[in-house]
This record gives sequence, structure tokens and C-alpha cells, in this order.
Amino acid sequence: MYMRKLTSEVVCTYDDPVAQTKEGKLRGLKIDSTYIFRGIKYATAKRFHMPERVAPWEGIKEAIQYGYVCPELNTPIAHDNYYVPHFYYPQDEDCLNLNVWTQSLDPKAKKPVMVWIHGGGFSTGSSVELFSYDGENLSAYGDVVVVSMNHRLNVLGYLDLSKYGEEYKNSVNVGLADLVMALEWIRDNIANFGGDPDNVMIFGQSGGGSKVCYLMQTPAADGLFHRAVMQSGGANVRETISPEETRLGRQEVAADILKYLSIAPENVKELETVNYYDLADAASKAIYNLQQRRGVAVDWCPLPDGEYFMGHPLTHGFRRESLHIPLLVGNVYSESANNYSVKFGDGLKNRWSEEQKYAIMKERLGDNTDRVIELFKKAYPGRNIADALYIGKRMREGSINFSKKRAEAGGKTWTWLFNLECPFNGGTLPWHNAEECYVFHNAQYIEAEYIPDVSEKLQDQMTTAWIEFAKKGDPNHPGIPAWEPTTADHVVTMCFDRECEVKTDHDVELLKLIPPELPRTLPDSHPFMHQVNLGRGVKPED
Amino acid sequence: MYMRKLTSEVVCTYDDPVAQTKEGKLRGLKIDSTYIFRGIKYATAKRFHMPERVAPWEGIKEAIQYGYVCPELNTPIAHDNYYVPHFYYPQDEDCLNLNVWTQSLDPKAKKPVMVWIHGGGFSTGSSVELFSYDGENLSAYGDVVVVSMNHRLNVLGYLDLSKYGEEYKNSVNVGLADLVMALEWIRDNIANFGGDPDNVMIFGQSGGGSKVCYLMQTPAADGLFHRAVMQSGGANVRETISPEETRLGRQEVAADILKYLSIAPENVKELETVNYYDLADAASKAIYNLQQRRGVAVDWCPLPDGEYFMGHPLTHGFRRESLHIPLLVGNVYSESANNYSVKFGDGLKNRWSEEQKYAIMKERLGDNTDRVIELFKKAYPGRNIADALYIGKRMREGSINFSKKRAEAGGKTWTWLFNLECPFNGGTLPWHNAEECYVFHNAQYIEAEYIPDVSEKLQDQMTTAWIEFAKKGDPNHPGIPAWEPTTADHVVTMCFDRECEVKTDHDVELLKLIPPELPRTLPDSHPFMHQVNLGRGVKPED
Repeated sequence: MYMRKLTSEVVCTYDDPVAQTKEGKLRGLKIDSTYIFRGIKYATAKRFHMPERVAPWEGIKEAIQYGYVCPELNTPIAHDNYYVPHFYYPQDEDCLNLNVWTQSLDPKAKKPVMVWIHGGGFSTGSSVELFSYDGENLSAYGDVVVVSMNHRLNVLGYLDLSKYGEEYKNSVNVGLADLVMALEWIRDNIANFGGDPDNVMIFGQSGGGSKVCYLMQTPAADGLFHRAVMQSGGANVRETISPEETRLGRQEVAADILKYLSIAPENVKELETVNYYDLADAASKAIYNLQQRRGVAVDWCPLPDGEYFMGHPLTHGFRRESLHIPLLVGNVYSESANNYSVKFGDGLKNRWSEEQKYAIMKERLGDNTDRVIELFKKAYPGRNIADALYIGKRMREGSINFSKKRAEAGGKTWTWLFNLECPFNGGTLPWHNAEECYVFHNAQYIEAEYIPDVSEKLQDQMTTAWIEFAKKGDPNHPGIPAWEPTTADHVVTMCFDRECEVKTDHDVELLKLIPPELPRTLPDSHPFMHQVNLGRGVKPED
Repeated sequence: MYMRKLTSEVVCTYDDPVAQTKEGKLRGLKIDSTYIFRGIKYATAKRFHMPERVAPWEGIKEAIQYGYVCPELNTPIAHDNYYVPHFYYPQDEDCLNLNVWTQSLDPKAKKPVMVWIHGGGFSTGSSVELFSYDGENLSAYGDVVVVSMNHRLNVLGYLDLSKYGEEYKNSVNVGLADLVMALEWIRDNIANFGGDPDNVMIFGQSGGGSKVCYLMQTPAADGLFHRAVMQSGGANVRETISPEETRLGRQEVAADILKYLSIAPENVKELETVNYYDLADAASKAIYNLQQRRGVAVDWCPLPDGEYFMGHPLTHGFRRESLHIPLLVGNVYSESANNYSVKFGDGLKNRWSEEQKYAIMKERLGDNTDRVIELFKKAYPGRNIADALYIGKRMREGSINFSKKRAEAGGKTWTWLFNLECPFNGGTLPWHNAEECYVFHNAQYIEAEYIPDVSEKLQDQMTTAWIEFAKKGDPNHPGIPAWEPTTADHVVTMCFDRECEVKTDHDVELLKLIPPELPRTLPDSHPFMHQVNLGRGVKPED
């Protein structure tokens, strides 16, 4: 664990601990009770092609450090890096690797397997991007097997070359296919890491939530997982334009990339070996120019083709084959609308007088102010009424809508909201990513989040809910109030906070009166604002 | 601290804690007793120009996350990343920033200041590159102010453009000038962080040791520091060819870079604004071609010009102006020759039988074997005699030679050797970087190194020696045996190990019989061996 004060000697010798996989032996390490294997290669892939299994090997391979992560088009310091601490890592196309944390290497142990899928849209991020993602505490606390993986992103994972030949038929979905391959590796090998291949839960946040959602819409993934959790992602439909327009835009990008690299369509194969940085430049330029030309943003992600990937359930229907999978859906109270990212008034919201609060709310909410205050007090008694300014409306409405629709279609879905105010900056409402350290039992490592006693209690409650869900497909446990699934008509929400509470339809009316979130503002001194060189290709005129 | 389990709430509000600098106010954070300010900009610089002070600002700037680190020509996973765990971080030319850890913000506190200068030659690395570098534990343990900084590296810090105009006179030394600027910032501001500007110690490892050595040979740095520590670097002369040839090679590189970028010499100014990645490409190509053409490797580093930088003391003489500065010089037992990096025989050395040991040593040492065994037993009684195979000869001989020569010139120099066998891989002799976590009181965080009880004891002893040295210019303290400086005739070595011991001339004869180190070999499965895309520009034929 990369943030761990050790209390015992780490076991790490070339022949201990060793695990057997289908392809060969791996040597990992053991810290206290936890066996850790890092950077296990689960597949190889030619650029723009479907992933393939790795070749078998003789002897014992090292799996003691993380593998390369997928290249991003650029890697600035994240705008939220203080309160979502990042662990950046070297990037390379040879990135199809996964990490395992487990309490046993006994094939008969059959522990639940929790497979973490990282966020960052389908464009950025990695299995180790955030400190919160470290699986040691989760594995040790729950006696579960934790897995996390890297897979192809952005232009490498989702470029549509289908027009250039049968062999590129799936190029727009190969990053998704990598995830399927990782799940196949788990099916075939996880027993030797103490895991039960018949009890696999996938969970992910933001882009990772979308990936979880999309895997339920991917026939090749059927049977490879048995529970699913979407955290602040996947519930809202990604596309803001029609699927046809999306597909068209993506094909224009592919054509432009070939053009910028002076590769004739019949020589498309050259694109497989062109220097990665030149490819990234051309891709960035193509994205920029599409935006200029037609006002269409490129959101790298899988595209439905009616065969490999069936599309988002809200536009293409919930697949019958995955509706039996129990699901947790939820998000955090503020998301990107938190009171560090978005400024209303001066100073800190928790120092405003009642008059200041009212004036600032009035400016934002107009004639709805009094009604919002009334509804807010009912929904969240005891909270600062100014917090109504910072509701992450879009994602919360998404969670509600998705849960209800899935219930209507016949799926079992529990809905949750993470609502713990964090100590950073005199009280900051929970931001996008804030719940992750509570799910991974890592809340004591995050500077902006840790609250003595409160964090310990809440992470026990939340982590246990996720673990119980992994074990039996139901998140209920004695440490939290009874939690029913959402129905087609009523959203039942577990609010994770200092006191966890289950509420029914508590904010539906309130949300209607909240205007859409404002864009993020950052202090001038923020390094993100000074980022000059790293936006490789973002200035296409260069 | 990025590897810290928290036990109290972190204080981090826009107006608490706040420190005043000459240019404006900064807002940091406080963890337990330690105030932390990250990413403080100490200078700005136009590319290839001397650094300048930053402009003053109004209000309070955030200093709660690390700043950009200097771009490297490429960033693969380090070959030693498991046992020297790295903290990679986004790269940008806007990288002149420093970090402060302190126990007080009282200008009257006047605590000793320990300024860490990172390694990675003059080409790679950063102030946060290694987990060992985190200053929180050192500051809290010793009640000292710890500072670490980023500065310009490789082509950005040491390109010789002096032939192209007076304004580039110092271009070959601007990375060194950045360090001087950081020390000036410390002189001007550190009192407001509880530090004593008249009691500043610089310490660095590997390239950082060279930087410490070079700062003593830089007139502009006179008076800016008062004690110095060189760890596994600086004692050996970097250049393997004559200074004239070195200068000539560097000028050829500059000319080639202009050529590859199609910039005419009279338009050299364009080099200041060319896209960084294109500059890096051209530089990599120029390095490669110089190597091919004349067999000369480019080691980016300052070059002596008789004015700004006076050259290595062993080739250019110890400067009188810095000879009064007390110095610690030392290195680790095995450096790059450790038994993970270099393979003799099969299996683990600590499992070899006496017969196996003798056969393997005989193969390496030939007729000297018996004599080596005899001398080794005297120098290191109780150790595995096979350890003689892994002596880091070059650096240890460098430490001895440098210490004696400086004594001869009239400088006070204490010599040390870190010799604790680490638990990794069934016992691995201490590698390059292994002592750093013991200097920073971070040994409990390094998986490959931590030994319960042994580590706690030794890190108390070593960290205290460094702290006492910072306080009073003498590393002695009651927790270690009496330690005299080396003289012109006799090397006196503090051996840091399970039992710390001071030895005189204990390995001088032995070293003579040890052949030069063999090049590193790595297991095939090591990710370093598979690194494909990141060597931007290393394949100049692309």
C-alpha cells in the first residue's frame, strides 16, 4: 500500500508469495495479512485491435509493482488534486494490467471478488490514479478479494476505424473489450487468489460508473459478474446529441487523424505503428477542429453497434440478460457544484450570517427562495440552508431516474446519497470522488476528508454495505437502518452522513426548483490555471 | 504527507494557516504539529534564461498542493521502482517551486533549516519523486524546518547556447542558478516559517549530492548555506572526458538541436518558444547522434565557466570560500551493485552453501578470493562473506578520496557508510537511495526496507545525526559512538547498521582487490524492459 505505515516486515522473496495463473506463476508480496500482486498483465493488444490473452511463460514473473497506465492526451495537475489526491504514474500503451489484494491464495477459499473500475470518463485515469483506490484496507477489513485494472482510453480505446476494414470493426469499443478481457482473466484465475469466480461484483465511480453500466449492456460480459455498483456515473446518458450524429462525429475525427498524419485511407495500417505522440497530436487537433466546425464535443467512449455494445439502457433499453443483477446506484451531495468549486458570495458559507445567506440565495433562486428553504429544511433538517445552493442536481436527478426506470423494467436497485460535509476549507460539501475513500475504508488517509471518530464510524458503515452487497447481493447489515430498493414510483435513498438515514422521495420536489449547476471556478493561484506545456496538442495552431 | 494515516483533523482554511512572504501571503495546511506549504513559486524563468523573482501579489495564494515538476526527456517506470518507491507527478516548464514543512510560523523561532536537493543526475527527478523525501516526519521529529525544491533539468537547465549571444551566457548553468534562487528565497523568507536563515543545511543524494558539491563551487551561493551533506553523489568527478571535450560536445548538441528544428543560428530566440516536445525530440536526437558520431555521452549538468560555476573541487580545487562549511560525505554499501541488480550464481545469496559461495567468489575474484575473504571478515565480522561480491566500489572509493582530499585542503568532513541489509528478496544489500528513508525518519513506509525495531532504532540514530549536524555542524549525539572527521591520511567511517560502529581505514585494502562493478541486469518480467512508447525521441530514426 503506497500510504501505509508498516508494523511488520513485508514478505517479498522470489519464491514467496507465489500464485499460479493459467499462463504461469507470479510472485507478489505480503503485508500483514494481505497478499498483493501488482501489474499483472491480463492481455496484450495491437493498437486499435481487440485484446488477446498473454502467452504462457516459464518460471516466476514479478508482480510487485504497478504496471504502466494508459497514455492520456495530456496530464495536467488535476484541478481537484488537493481534495482528491492523485497518484500519477508512467504511461505506456502496454497498459493491460491489473492488481489484486487478497487475504488468501487458497483455491478453496472462494471469497467475494470486488472489481474496481476507475473513472476519468473513458479518456483519463488509471487503476492507481487516486490514493483512495488502494485495495489493501478494503481486502483486509472485509476479507474479500479486490481487483483493479487499467484499460485503453481515449484515442487508443475508442477510435472508430470501422469504415477502413473488417479488422477494425470493434476499434470504437476495444477499451470496453479490455474490461471484458480483464473479467475473463478473473473468471479463469481468481480462484488461485482465494476468490470466487461465481461471485464477482463490479464497482466504479464517474467514468467507472459508466463502465459498470455499459458492461451490463455488453453481451460478451454476460456471466462474468454478479453484482454491480454505479457511483456518480452511468445513470445519466452521456450523449447530448443523437447516436447517429455521435457516430458521424467520431468518423470525422478518424478521417481527420489520417489526414493530419498524411496517411491515405488504403494505408490505414500505418496508423497502428505511428509514433504515439504524433497520433495524440493528430487526435487533439481533430477533436478541436470538429468542435470548431460543428460545435460537437468528442466524448471518447464506446459506441453502440447493436452487436458488441448495446448502448445506454435509458436510450436502448435495459438488457434482459443483466436485469437480474442487483445494483447500487448513487452519488454525492454536491459533485462538481461543491462550495470550493463554485463561488456564491464572499468568504466561507459556514461563516455567513442568516441575512447574507438569504441575500445570496435570493440572487441565485429568485422567487423560489422561500419555497426552496422550506423544502430543504424538510429534506435535510439541521443543515445550513445555504447548502441548497450547492446541490449536484444533474447527478442526483440521474440517480433517481435511473433507479426508478430500472425498477420499472424489473431490476433490483438500491439508491444512495453520500452527504457528509468534509472539513476542508471550513466545511466543504462532498465533491465528486469524496465517497470513494469511505467505500475503500481509506478515509483516514485523505487530508481534506478525515474527521476523527466520524470517519471511522461512517467508513465502517459504508464499506460494510459494499462488502455485504458483494457477498449476498443486498447491502443491508446491522450497522445501518433497513434499506429497501427503489420502486418505479418512489425513490428510497440511503443518506450516508454523520447519522445514516433512509428517506423516501425526500428531495424530489426540491430538485425541481434548483437551477442547473454553474460551471466550475478556480482560484487564480491554482496550478491548473497555469498549465502551459502539458496540453500536448491542445493548441492545434502550433 | 502523502503516506500518512491521519489521527487528527487537518487544518486547511483559506485564512489558516497563513504565512507571509516578501511577495505576498500563502495559505498552507497543518497536520498535527506540522505546518505544510506545497508548491510555493520561488522564481519564474524564460527558457534558457536566468531565473527571476516572482511578482508580488494581493490576497492569499494557495500553497496546498505540490507544483509542477520539471519535464524529463522521458519517464519510464524506474528500474528500481519497487524498492525505491516513486511518486511521479505532472511535468511542466513552470516548475520553479518549493515545499516547506515546519513546526512554527513564528519569526523568532529560528529553527535550523534542512534543504533537500533531489537526485536523478541533473536530468530527472523532482522534490517529490520518492516517498522517502516527504519532510513531515523529519520536521516533527527534529523540530526543524525542511525545504525541498524543483529546478530545471536536462535540456532546459543545461543547454549551452553561450555561442549565440550574451543573453545566453549562463544557459548551461541556469538549472544550478535556480537552486541559488531557491536558497535566496529561503534567506529572505524562511524566518516567517520559523526558520533561521543563518543556519541552513543543504543535503542531497546522487545527483542531489553533486548539486550540493557544486553549490559549494558556486560564488553566487556563498553565504546562503552553512552545512552540507553529500549522499551517494558528488564525491566522484562526473566527467569522464576532459572539460574542453565536454564543453565541445555540449556545443555540438546545441548546434544539432537548432539544425533539427530548422532554426538558423541568428534566429536562436525561436528556441525559447518552440513546443517543448519538439525541443525534447531534437535534444534526444542530438544526444543520440553525438554518441554515435564520437562515442561521447551527454551528461546534462552545469559546466565550469570560471565565473558562475567553478567546477568540481577534485579537478578545479576546493574553493576557499566554502571550505569552512562542515560536510558529511557518504554512501551505501552496495549502490547499483546490490544483489538484486547484479546476478552472481543462482538463487538467493543468503541461501548459498559455503561451497557455493566460494565457487562463485572464485569465478569473480580469481586468485584474490582468499585474501578478499580474509580482509572482508576483518572489515565486516559476522557478515555473509558473499557480500564482498556486491561492494559498491566506485562510490565508496569516491567517498574516501573526497573526504581525505578535503581534509588535506583544510575542510572538516565526516565520512559515513550505510550498511543495513534490507529484508527484500531474502536479504538485499543496501541499494542506491536506501539510506534516504533513514535520514527522513520514513523507514516505516518503505516496503522493501522496514525491519521492526531495527528500523526504528537506526532511523532515530541517523535522523538525529543529520539533525544535530544541521543544528551545530557536528553529527555527534549520545545515541551513536563518538565520530571523528576523516583526516588527510586516515578515513574514519561511521558504519550505520544494526549496530553503529566507527571504523578507521577498515576497507581501504579490501577495496583495492574488488573489480569494478558489473552493469545492472534486470529480470525479463521487469516493466522497465518492456517500456516501448515513453522513450520520446530515444529512437531518432522515427
